[in-house]
Amino acid sequence: MIRLAIDAMGGDHAPEVVIEGVKQALATYSDIEITLFGPQEELMSQFDDLTRLVIVDASEKITGEDDPVKTIRKKKDSSLVKAAYAVKDGHADALISAGNTGALLAAGLLIIGRLKGIERPGLMPLIPTINPSSPYFILMDAGANADAKAIYLYQHALLANQYAQSVLKIETPRISLLNNGAESGKGDKLRKEVYEQLEADQTLNFVGNIESKDLLTGNVDIVITDGFTGNAVLKSLEGTAKAIFKLLKEALVQSSLKTKVGAFLVKDRLKQLALEFDDSKQGGAVLLGVNNAVVKAHGSSDDQAIFNAIRQTREIVQSQAIEKMKNIFNKN
Amino acid sequence: MIRLAIDAMGGDHAPEVVIEGVKQALATYSDIEITLFGPQEELMSQFDDLTRLVIVDASEKITGEDDPVKTIRKKKDSSLVKAAYAVKDGHADALISAGNTGALLAAGLLIIGRLKGIERPGLMPLIPTINPSSPYFILMDAGANADAKAIYLYQHALLANQYAQSVLKIETPRISLLNNGAESGKGDKLRKEVYEQLEADQTLNFVGNIESKDLLTGNVDIVITDGFTGNAVLKSLEGTAKAIFKLLKEALVQSSLKTKVGAFLVKDRLKQLALEFDDSKQGGAVLLGVNNAVVKAHGSSDDQAIFNAIRQTREIVQSQAIEKMKNIFNKN
Repeated sequence: MIRLAIDAMGGDHAPEVVIEGVKQALATYSDIEITLFGPQEELMSQFDDLTRLVIVDASEKITGEDDPVKTIRKKKDSSLVKAAYAVKDGHADALISAGNTGALLAAGLLIIGRLKGIERPGLMPLIPTINPSSPYFILMDAGANADAKAIYLYQHALLANQYAQSVLKIETPRISLLNNGAESGKGDKLRKEVYEQLEADQTLNFVGNIESKDLLTGNVDIVITDGFTGNAVLKSLEGTAKAIFKLLKEALVQSSLKTKVGAFLVKDRLKQLALEFDDSKQGGAVLLGVNNAVVKAHGSSDDQAIFNAIRQTREIVQSQAIEKMKNIFNKN
Repeated sequence: MIRLAIDAMGGDHAPEVVIEGVKQALATYSDIEITLFGPQEELMSQFDDLTRLVIVDASEKITGEDDPVKTIRKKKDSSLVKAAYAVKDGHADALISAGNTGALLAAGLLIIGRLKGIERPGLMPLIPTINPSSPYFILMDAGANADAKAIYLYQHALLANQYAQSVLKIETPRISLLNNGAESGKGDKLRKEVYEQLEADQTLNFVGNIESKDLLTGNVDIVITDGFTGNAVLKSLEGTAKAIFKLLKEALVQSSLKTKVGAFLVKDRLKQLALEFDDSKQGGAVLLGVNNAVVKAHGSSDDQAIFNAIRQTREIVQSQAIEKMKNIFNKN
């Protein structure tokens, strides 16, 4: 059995969408057991069937405004902190939350704990591309660490590489370094140092630098960067896509009759296109470098996104990716 | 008279588009004089009228592959280096090139020279937004310096602020710091230091942090960041916009008959939309912090983009923005 600890109270539409996602996942996968953390009575009333489901009472809730580290220490009875302790204490294999990202990172780092040998865990989302034969790529680190050192980025490459092999079943993942030019020798001191380390490691398929203009082409499987730049680039991708789709909608509605008729005819295809760009399809962002699978679903998750995060977390546990990561760093 | 030194051989479509852009600009503005640098005979044959136009022979050409600093020192007879010396020696007021960005930055820094008191010049493009009442914003630094210090970013804010006031006629430009969260206290060490400096300077209208997902909303006039992140975010904006327009085109062409008919009807509006997102409309990127106006037109510039860069450079010289910048830093 794969045992998942889920924060019922994280995210913009909690607990409703979490409850729905959990129901769908329990119905789909007979090899998962879920422990749900939140107000027990309220949650209980939403489930007719408690097969492979335990509901543990948590009286507090961490909000988006709470300071990550402080709240983890203070709100001991929150759904997130109790779920994290369940994983730490061995009652569950993995943790899922759609709530405060910083608080989840802090719970992963301070409660569940770093993998032995890892300097800093990193946050790893899967980003959609426009390439059907390589429909997403791994971005690592997307924001767990604002201040970076070369060793963090190098270790992140090892972690992401193992994830891509074990979970995504990519035999030799193409690893690239996000940089301000494609040629070798580009970038700041940090980039130059990381480039050398990635190039020297024969266990990695390092394919060189990538510029952010080429991210969506799907030419690489893994993009390594520091958390500050990763965060900026990720939000810039999301913001630009959103802005263009908004502009498009306005442009087609406010135009001539001819354009309006055309807009009506292409509407379905545009909606489908926007969906293809939905980055919750692949699940959530994974905090890699801690002792268990920790998955952050989007704050705006609907039930389908929660389901996808559960599906993904199940795959991570099943693949034993974390155990394999432990082995890499124990050898070193 | 406003005297412009223009590199005829820079950019993907040089010298044809440069020649066309120069002709249009000379016809439009009677207060400009242009010195064009490149193979004299070839260029001469393209102009019937040499009023307010001088063509200076340059036998060498800097390519996109040349190492910026080395090539500036080596190719003394290149169109770019000769144009830069014309500015340095007082024969022209400003420099324009659509060629190798790094080489132009090096020419600005090493030949034309830093403004007294400036640590590092920065590269400042104008980026289109989706907000009609605030249709573009300044990004500074977009990539002149990979390794950053707080003092660079603070000085860049002063330079960009003066540019926005003098050239763009924005009375009190809204200045923001690109960061990984909107709240104060966010970011890495660099961001925290710069935030304090910007907040403490009462001559600046500092409105706080901005996340890259909000860049295209047009809520601020100036976005301050380090050159590495600026380059990554800029290329990510460009790459995402390009990718989505490509995807859109494919989606509409490969679909059902209904969608195809619709696509035909909305085609013109989509083209117009893509044009609105054309970042050469406002001109080129300006290297701020050197002794003269230095403008980098897009490598893929057409004649209209070259014309826009000339129009913009004329406005910079006319506004005496550089003189005003000199005064700020001489006082300090």
